[in-house]
Amino acid sequence: MKAPAAISSPSDLDQLCINTIRTLSMDAVQKANSGHPGTAMALAPLAYVMWTRHMRYNPANPQWPDRDRFVLSAGHACILQYVMLYLTGYDVSLDDLKSFRQWGSKTPGHPEYGHTPGIEATTGPLGQGFGNAVGMALAERMLAARFNKSPGAAVPVNHFTYLICSDGDVMEGVASEAASLAGHLQLGRIIAVYDDNRITLDGPSALSFNEDVCERFNAYGWHTLAVEDANDLDAIDAALTAAKGDPRPSLIRLRSHIGYGAPHKQDTNAAHGEPLGADEIKLAKKFYGWPEDAQFLVPDEALAQFRTAVERGAKYETEWRKEFDAFSGAAPDLARTFTAQIAGERPAGWGDGLPAFKPEDGPIATRDASNKALNAIAAKMPALVGGAADLATSNKTDIKDGGSIEAGSLGDRILHFGVREHAMGAALNGIMLHHGFRAFGATFLIFSDYMRPSIRLAALSRINPIYVWTHDSIGLGEDGPTHQSIEQLASLRAIPNMTVFRPADANEAAICWRLAIEHKDGPVGIVCTRQKLPVYSAESVRGAERGGYVLSREASDDPAVILIGTGSEVQWCIGAQKLLKEKGVHARVVSLPCWSLFDAQDQAYRDSVLPPSVTARVSIEAAATFGWERYVGLTGTIIGMRRFGASAPADILFKEFGFTAEHVAEAAVTAIEKSKPYTEIYSPIQRKNKE
Amino acid sequence: MKAPAAISSPSDLDQLCINTIRTLSMDAVQKANSGHPGTAMALAPLAYVMWTRHMRYNPANPQWPDRDRFVLSAGHACILQYVMLYLTGYDVSLDDLKSFRQWGSKTPGHPEYGHTPGIEATTGPLGQGFGNAVGMALAERMLAARFNKSPGAAVPVNHFTYLICSDGDVMEGVASEAASLAGHLQLGRIIAVYDDNRITLDGPSALSFNEDVCERFNAYGWHTLAVEDANDLDAIDAALTAAKGDPRPSLIRLRSHIGYGAPHKQDTNAAHGEPLGADEIKLAKKFYGWPEDAQFLVPDEALAQFRTAVERGAKYETEWRKEFDAFSGAAPDLARTFTAQIAGERPAGWGDGLPAFKPEDGPIATRDASNKALNAIAAKMPALVGGAADLATSNKTDIKDGGSIEAGSLGDRILHFGVREHAMGAALNGIMLHHGFRAFGATFLIFSDYMRPSIRLAALSRINPIYVWTHDSIGLGEDGPTHQSIEQLASLRAIPNMTVFRPADANEAAICWRLAIEHKDGPVGIVCTRQKLPVYSAESVRGAERGGYVLSREASDDPAVILIGTGSEVQWCIGAQKLLKEKGVHARVVSLPCWSLFDAQDQAYRDSVLPPSVTARVSIEAAATFGWERYVGLTGTIIGMRRFGASAPADILFKEFGFTAEHVAEAAVTAIEKSKPYTEIYSPIQRKNKE
Repeated sequence: MKAPAAISSPSDLDQLCINTIRTLSMDAVQKANSGHPGTAMALAPLAYVMWTRHMRYNPANPQWPDRDRFVLSAGHACILQYVMLYLTGYDVSLDDLKSFRQWGSKTPGHPEYGHTPGIEATTGPLGQGFGNAVGMALAERMLAARFNKSPGAAVPVNHFTYLICSDGDVMEGVASEAASLAGHLQLGRIIAVYDDNRITLDGPSALSFNEDVCERFNAYGWHTLAVEDANDLDAIDAALTAAKGDPRPSLIRLRSHIGYGAPHKQDTNAAHGEPLGADEIKLAKKFYGWPEDAQFLVPDEALAQFRTAVERGAKYETEWRKEFDAFSGAAPDLARTFTAQIAGERPAGWGDGLPAFKPEDGPIATRDASNKALNAIAAKMPALVGGAADLATSNKTDIKDGGSIEAGSLGDRILHFGVREHAMGAALNGIMLHHGFRAFGATFLIFSDYMRPSIRLAALSRINPIYVWTHDSIGLGEDGPTHQSIEQLASLRAIPNMTVFRPADANEAAICWRLAIEHKDGPVGIVCTRQKLPVYSAESVRGAERGGYVLSREASDDPAVILIGTGSEVQWCIGAQKLLKEKGVHARVVSLPCWSLFDAQDQAYRDSVLPPSVTARVSIEAAATFGWERYVGLTGTIIGMRRFGASAPADILFKEFGFTAEHVAEAAVTAIEKSKPYTEIYSPIQRKNKE
Repeated sequence: MKAPAAISSPSDLDQLCINTIRTLSMDAVQKANSGHPGTAMALAPLAYVMWTRHMRYNPANPQWPDRDRFVLSAGHACILQYVMLYLTGYDVSLDDLKSFRQWGSKTPGHPEYGHTPGIEATTGPLGQGFGNAVGMALAERMLAARFNKSPGAAVPVNHFTYLICSDGDVMEGVASEAASLAGHLQLGRIIAVYDDNRITLDGPSALSFNEDVCERFNAYGWHTLAVEDANDLDAIDAALTAAKGDPRPSLIRLRSHIGYGAPHKQDTNAAHGEPLGADEIKLAKKFYGWPEDAQFLVPDEALAQFRTAVERGAKYETEWRKEFDAFSGAAPDLARTFTAQIAGERPAGWGDGLPAFKPEDGPIATRDASNKALNAIAAKMPALVGGAADLATSNKTDIKDGGSIEAGSLGDRILHFGVREHAMGAALNGIMLHHGFRAFGATFLIFSDYMRPSIRLAALSRINPIYVWTHDSIGLGEDGPTHQSIEQLASLRAIPNMTVFRPADANEAAICWRLAIEHKDGPVGIVCTRQKLPVYSAESVRGAERGGYVLSREASDDPAVILIGTGSEVQWCIGAQKLLKEKGVHARVVSLPCWSLFDAQDQAYRDSVLPPSVTARVSIEAAATFGWERYVGLTGTIIGMRRFGASAPADILFKEFGFTAEHVAEAAVTAIEKSKPYTEIYSPIQRKNKE
């Protein structure tokens, strides 16, 4: 198609390209009748400069390991990113833009990792993309420290992480935490552009926000710059160049005008979250010197200019592959390991050293068993890295001789996230999205609440960071109800694609770690006790790998009652089983360390563990009872916490709140009574007889 | 008991008092064999200066409305606070200190509001107390703007909010958000002391944290000061005086030495979270010039000095009451309203204007109905204030003519929290803890995840902010899975003391608002749709006030199947009921807007709604299925979301994911089939016949 205006100079071509981005964005949002046009219109010049003059990427291979990463933390502006993916030659078509925000399209309402080629992170919930970018930039430097043969060498890892963030992003606490962490680690490969448009959804950002963002980032140890005119290509270009050259993470404050060119909506919140309307679009197109009635117009000259990215990208990757081959010749083992880590492959025999614990060696807390399992794997799997949000001493997650990852020791293995659980969650996502490491993060189970939005995005993105959550119940004792998890287990189990393990003993903990490492499709939480637990034999807990199993079978294979527990409470099921046996009642003990895994087993297996004919069931878990009806039905008994905890030594709390073998045994007797066939008690005829 | 050293000067007495705080703290932690001694030892001089020279409080009446508020955001250091409460004459005894962290004691492991006299906020999860303090200081200024008769007048409201926070607090995103908000609102009545001890749980804070905290707070618009020696009483005194005099919120960075005086543990993380041990305590006491073997020693001179607070406090309150009486004489209505608001009393007739909606007026989104209900109440209840985290336009929560609460208009009613959901949650808690207002906050339901730790603390503290959470399901449409709630309903329902309403139509929404306003014991969430819903008659939904009820009864009063829904999905139960009727199947429709309220009804009522004899049950909710077994049992059918949502128009999403009347009707037929008495299908004999 012909260009709307004659091209007589390079700057004419620049403007043509920029207005192509703007008009495509407006048109796509208008056609969808939904979306966010204003930011794309404002930031088109930035996108143009970044994608054509700065970022190194290969549209033909979005997985090229050394590509620059790009994260749109302001995910609502995704039409900008989709337009750029289309224009620069990724596998995103003009038709895909036309089906923006429609069922089954490649172009959903916010960017989704794994769904659209070239999308590096699922964003939209504000602040998350910022944390992801910090994780990516960290992963890049950690890989460079390990694999680039000499300090400063550029192969195999030498790229930047670009980030666009909004007022909303920099207001979110998770971004503040992540920025502080990035400053601490001096992650100079982050180039963040802060879209200072002074408008948020509800109106001028000054309604709620007037801090000095650059001064704040200076305080974090960042390099900050300002560009006062978002249409000044040279200033943008110079700022990006300066940012790349500075050893600190960089924040470029870019003063922009949301809805630029729309005469009635520019600089207002009306340009933020809804289509401009056909009339306003025409006026904006007129302002741009664009044919007013043309829709989805892509001038040939503009497309040709954008598509130079294809050739450029091929060249980048070819050059890199050549250098990588040379590197591979000089350091074949290193190169092989690099390739394997990027692919997420595990070394052979990674699980060989997993510990087995013996009952006779005495009780052990599952956090300590977790530590042994983690270290056994870490010893054979260098890609495993991680750390805690300032609770490593309590979570027992330090990798032995792993060394602290700091600005000067990025090749080490222990991350120190500080008291920043949310940034930990978002950065773990960034590390996993980057590829190259398997990352874990640790805190108390109660503080999973602080990182929940990041956990959800890991689940939605089907990436698999591992969380070690210890101090998992009232069993943490004296710290009291503010620190004792109650509803966290139920809340985490309710997340789709989330796998929660709560091992009953040290041997289950080792199995959970093995399953966690093998798990691909979503995040995994390993929930551990602070307090010591008895150890069952490795043989008897083998069924844990199916999520739920019969830990202790009744003699007759025909139980009168099933006692179901998880974690530390399984010990009282075992105790109750003994008490019941003394009364001649056969009870089965089922350990259920992972609900989702058990639910995914076939019906026959599930029925073999929980025979449908046995409706006398008791569950026990020192947590909210919410959800347990799934296993005990309407007639069973659920022993759990129906309130918050209390501050006292753990053994006293368990007794006071009814977590004892005696209580389970009592409940079992009641459950047997209640489970007499329903129709005997409630049949309609009997009801009528009563009335 | 005699003092350990002769008092020959005021500074000797100061030191005696300070060392009394230190040694009591060490002894209490040691006796509990659990706790955090180091911060109390470090900050004893600060506490002494604050409690004896600055804070205005009345130990005999911890509820005196014009007292200064004190929040210990570093809640783990609560022994410091308990010691101060005891020493200054609150209803906390030496014996209470001796039962620190024990079952049933007044001195739990973290401060608990409502549990210990003088504790203003439940803290421990880091950063929360910071946000609470911002909410309290905001409430103070909002009350002053409304009730103090002239600008600058000091009656009835004229107090400060003091805050002690740690490295961990200032690292947490929620504190960053709250600090930015406090700077924006210029809340000059906050005096925050940042305990710069350079130690966190895992070791030196430099492991993960080296930003310039004061520079950061300057960027937020705060007044910052530094005291380089935590033992310099004059410097502390001068800093507090300067802070009180500055119109900006103040942060005093206080360089302290954790575990001050313990020769082997000072300035190490060993002084943070565990008792010092008997030997180290002796050495520390020796360093303080204290009898080494004395435990819980309270020198008479020291106690007398602290207890001057009792007389001082009585005087403060007496003076205030005198001034209040004068004020009351001059402005009786204002004074009465003030007293009523502080007491949480509602004006007579507050609910009279609540709207009733008519089916014939057509469908209406529950967010719009919520807006009408909210405004009807707001018009009669000036204490109702609130706002959104930059989504008021979408949440529909603006109070008509309420005016924006800004630094210059603190007497208005609409809060603008910015894109800071977590600070919103923590500040709402602070407003409620302060007393004087009923506060609500709004965002999309999905972003309840961002504020979850604050929601939990509201529930634990049994305070009752109201949350308006809109855009409650895939029904929000094109924004896609990042914005569509799935697991949030289950996750919120699992929290003890949390009340979640999800109204099925406009009239239920009005009832939910009424119940929310009446609710006392814990937070309330009102969950609303973006999309329009049919309206049922006000008469037919009256049962909503019991949490669950029969919305549409089968003709025969003997249902073959029960269809249970909440919110927008109830419409498809009604649709299915019609479809089933055509087939001669009598279905009952139950609307279940509030699980916890329904569960709290007596068994007879619950059985009348969900007759136990009817085991053919279908539930439908466009959310995670987690927990629904409670109402449908093991044999029912749960229609819900077993995955994340997708980006597309809402009507397409509902159809694609099976939320239709047809699907409910189909499921009902299956449920009837499945619900044939259990023993017919699975009796042991039959099983054996099969094998």
